[in-house]
Amino acid sequence: MGPGCSAGFALETHPHAYRHWRFHVEPPLATLTLAVDEDSPFVPGYKLKLNSYDLGVDIELADAVARLRFEHPDVRAVIVTGGLDRVFCAGANIRMLAASAHGFKVNFCKYTNETRLAMEDASAHSGQHYIAACNGTTAGGGYELALACEEIYLVDDGNSSVSLPEVPLLGVLPGTGGLTRVVDKRKVRRDLADVFATLAEGVKGKRAVEWGLVDGLLPRSRFQEAVRERALAAAARETRPKGPGIQLEALAPEVTAGAVRYRHVALDLNHAGRTADLTVEAGPGYAPLRAFREIDDALLRLRFHYPEIGLVMLKTRGDLDMVRQADEALYDNRQDWLAHETLLLMARTLRRLDLTARSLFAAVEEGSCFAGSLLELALAADRTYMLRDAAGAVRLAASPLNGGCLPMTHGLSRLQARFLADPARAAAVAAARQPFDTEAALAAGLVTAAADEIDLEDELRVAVEERVSLSPDALTGMEANLRFAGAENSDSKIFGRLSAWQNWIFSRPNATGERGALTLYGKPERPQFNWPRT
Amino acid sequence: MGPGCSAGFALETHPHAYRHWRFHVEPPLATLTLAVDEDSPFVPGYKLKLNSYDLGVDIELADAVARLRFEHPDVRAVIVTGGLDRVFCAGANIRMLAASAHGFKVNFCKYTNETRLAMEDASAHSGQHYIAACNGTTAGGGYELALACEEIYLVDDGNSSVSLPEVPLLGVLPGTGGLTRVVDKRKVRRDLADVFATLAEGVKGKRAVEWGLVDGLLPRSRFQEAVRERALAAAARETRPKGPGIQLEALAPEVTAGAVRYRHVALDLNHAGRTADLTVEAGPGYAPLRAFREIDDALLRLRFHYPEIGLVMLKTRGDLDMVRQADEALYDNRQDWLAHETLLLMARTLRRLDLTARSLFAAVEEGSCFAGSLLELALAADRTYMLRDAAGAVRLAASPLNGGCLPMTHGLSRLQARFLADPARAAAVAAARQPFDTEAALAAGLVTAAADEIDLEDELRVAVEERVSLSPDALTGMEANLRFAGAENSDSKIFGRLSAWQNWIFSRPNATGERGALTLYGKPERPQFNWPRT
Repeated sequence: MGPGCSAGFALETHPHAYRHWRFHVEPPLATLTLAVDEDSPFVPGYKLKLNSYDLGVDIELADAVARLRFEHPDVRAVIVTGGLDRVFCAGANIRMLAASAHGFKVNFCKYTNETRLAMEDASAHSGQHYIAACNGTTAGGGYELALACEEIYLVDDGNSSVSLPEVPLLGVLPGTGGLTRVVDKRKVRRDLADVFATLAEGVKGKRAVEWGLVDGLLPRSRFQEAVRERALAAAARETRPKGPGIQLEALAPEVTAGAVRYRHVALDLNHAGRTADLTVEAGPGYAPLRAFREIDDALLRLRFHYPEIGLVMLKTRGDLDMVRQADEALYDNRQDWLAHETLLLMARTLRRLDLTARSLFAAVEEGSCFAGSLLELALAADRTYMLRDAAGAVRLAASPLNGGCLPMTHGLSRLQARFLADPARAAAVAAARQPFDTEAALAAGLVTAAADEIDLEDELRVAVEERVSLSPDALTGMEANLRFAGAENSDSKIFGRLSAWQNWIFSRPNATGERGALTLYGKPERPQFNWPRT
Repeated sequence: MGPGCSAGFALETHPHAYRHWRFHVEPPLATLTLAVDEDSPFVPGYKLKLNSYDLGVDIELADAVARLRFEHPDVRAVIVTGGLDRVFCAGANIRMLAASAHGFKVNFCKYTNETRLAMEDASAHSGQHYIAACNGTTAGGGYELALACEEIYLVDDGNSSVSLPEVPLLGVLPGTGGLTRVVDKRKVRRDLADVFATLAEGVKGKRAVEWGLVDGLLPRSRFQEAVRERALAAAARETRPKGPGIQLEALAPEVTAGAVRYRHVALDLNHAGRTADLTVEAGPGYAPLRAFREIDDALLRLRFHYPEIGLVMLKTRGDLDMVRQADEALYDNRQDWLAHETLLLMARTLRRLDLTARSLFAAVEEGSCFAGSLLELALAADRTYMLRDAAGAVRLAASPLNGGCLPMTHGLSRLQARFLADPARAAAVAAARQPFDTEAALAAGLVTAAADEIDLEDELRVAVEERVSLSPDALTGMEANLRFAGAENSDSKIFGRLSAWQNWIFSRPNATGERGALTLYGKPERPQFNWPRT
């Protein structure tokens, strides 16, 4: 057991409750200052020294990034800096990592990766440019945090360096996107990246600039001022009108032993069967922004609090046409900042779903409303089962949002990834304005199987029982391969290539065994490696 | 310990010595018939039942694929079929896998993957089209073998199926490209692929055709004849003149405790230091085809026989101009079948180098000849160190082969991957007709560091000692990420995404623990899984 096994913590927070970040808004700039309270670890057992982070620190960062988009749309550049003297950030807390169970480590890294991608998404698509102001030591996950920013400036004090000391000091990878972003995003020459990633002390000064590890050195004497100038220059590139902001209200789900309930969403847990139903209800007052924020929160709770749930049945209830109309309104207003931000949030939530290491089945039943953005839930599922009703009342429907507004991590729409063999079919489904009844959905390739009521219940029961009886590790690996057909990009390489290698390394004695490097970090003993290369 | 730890077996063979494959050539067709001798396992301890394979079987297949290209260029289509009644191939032998050490499993899978890619390379580039004639049970690695063929035909006997039962029966992945080829190469819809890869009994008949798992069903009564028609049709598409073939002579290296020596290549082992020198000597009589075959064999010996060697120093000795001239002759004659095949072989060898899980440094010293195709060795290295000599006699040189004739697994040239940030530089280096002395090589970004003789020796010694002191697992993960900057394709996803997940799964108790599914396969006990999803 390790951190994260404590039951039921909330994944949402608010700037008023931050312990580790200072949240300062002064449009067009905002500044996120990391000043970790070392005595407030997320679970007891370690001190958060040197601005090192744990899940609690990253939950605050994710919250800040989200609030800046919705509550402060007049912010055009965001400075990320360190609030401790001569320390930007020392990365993930090693004692926390060493004490954590394998599953928590993997989940923690996935979450921090998603937060970094949300920052890049904001720089690329929300007109909020992230600038890393590395005021001192920028090590490991600290440099990975900087790498997620659009520009990186390092203080020129003759001492401060950027570094990725994971390989030489800990025997693990810079797995929060570090290796990928160095060579794929910043396009650092691979041999220089090799030297850099094996040099515990890192690289400083002009060399860091020459190698492309940072975008500039700024003098200590006027560091803040010089960073501010860069940030204002980035902000000045954004001229689209935005605002005023809206408040992201608390989700505050009702949590019981058997369920997590939100306004539009419910996660119903069948602990004995190791399954859960994730149901989205699009009734009167349905608001996509709220609904997708709730889905997002439910997915995080599922990941952190209910690791034994092996399968999630995705369900919807409500009015197909209403969902479609809500989608169309978003699509028609997509030039408007708020509709645009809502679409970006929906896309991030769906990507979080794709990356959730649980089997996903969708059940299309009577009264369901898998239309457009909610159809994406079914398209994200590993399999979709649809009721064949005599009346033809059970239907799926596309909306303009299925045409590419909600891309997967690797850049394809879910329809494109589904119909790789027939791209025209992806386009035809996205353009369809008529709903698909069961026969039409089968013919179009949108569902895996269909049956009438009695047979469907039986078929689903058998399929679910079989699924949750299989090796959870094999399923995770299988799903990670089948879900992302087609190309890869830098983002998907982080989850597909980098994370998979990191997971392997986390499970190897050379890192996490009794004499492994991660286990022994900070202790007097030297790690003992088993030398054969694999 | 497991298979593969037996010392010093050869990686080369000859059709006369095959125990498991029948090699029949009748231009324009060839037929490779798998008829595994179950009593001839590669190492004692298991029976190769039901045409299951081990390393010995795959070494023969790799040899057959190579010989067909060079010795039988008049072959235009290759039928791969099973020689046992109602059995095509049951995949990798499970008892062998279960008894193997982790490192051997990983190496075995890498080798079989490379053999499958060599078949695809022959279909795509050598005008030898591989046709799988699945005459019966086609399971697991057996179906993965079929997937590596351009066309797959299944016997229509009401019983024979194709299947990937690894996830449901063994708790591991179809890791020899299976998952990737199903959705990326054959573009099977992901939900159907999900059903298929969890269905132990597989899919047969019309459903296999409808789902895109096979290209056709052929009646049992005239199966061979119908396959032959398809193969002749594929052969008829190839009209380029080729031949006559050349003999691939035996490499037969001289192996001692401290070295493996070939005609042009030597692998000198420093067991105590856990390093090796891989030296290519381009002296009089230098023949690129022979030299690259030797490099390939040396790499395989390194992988299987010397797992504790952590770092390989890549060296060359000889005449820079002569290497360049040999390259130019190949390039100028690249329309000729033999030059074309030689280039393809050189490219495959260099890809084997990129995928070798050892740290690779290159040392550019006096008398070295890193030109063109041999420059690729330095470009494949994680770092390159170059001597700065007073006379300017130490030089590197490009040749036309650096311009894209020898692509990496992910499709880029090594220069393109190196200079992702500046594609024009990759083109400029490839086009350069003047050699690069040390200063020019540094300026062009071709080497990592340069120093004069005394300093270089010192710098190299320190760098090597540091490198081999680091966690071997972390280095493998780091190198697998830094070496493949830029895009991914289906081939590179097999090694980057699929293999990395498989390695993780192989190291998990749910597969290989005492009660893991792989361990218990074929035994009366049921596996016991640790349920949390990760």
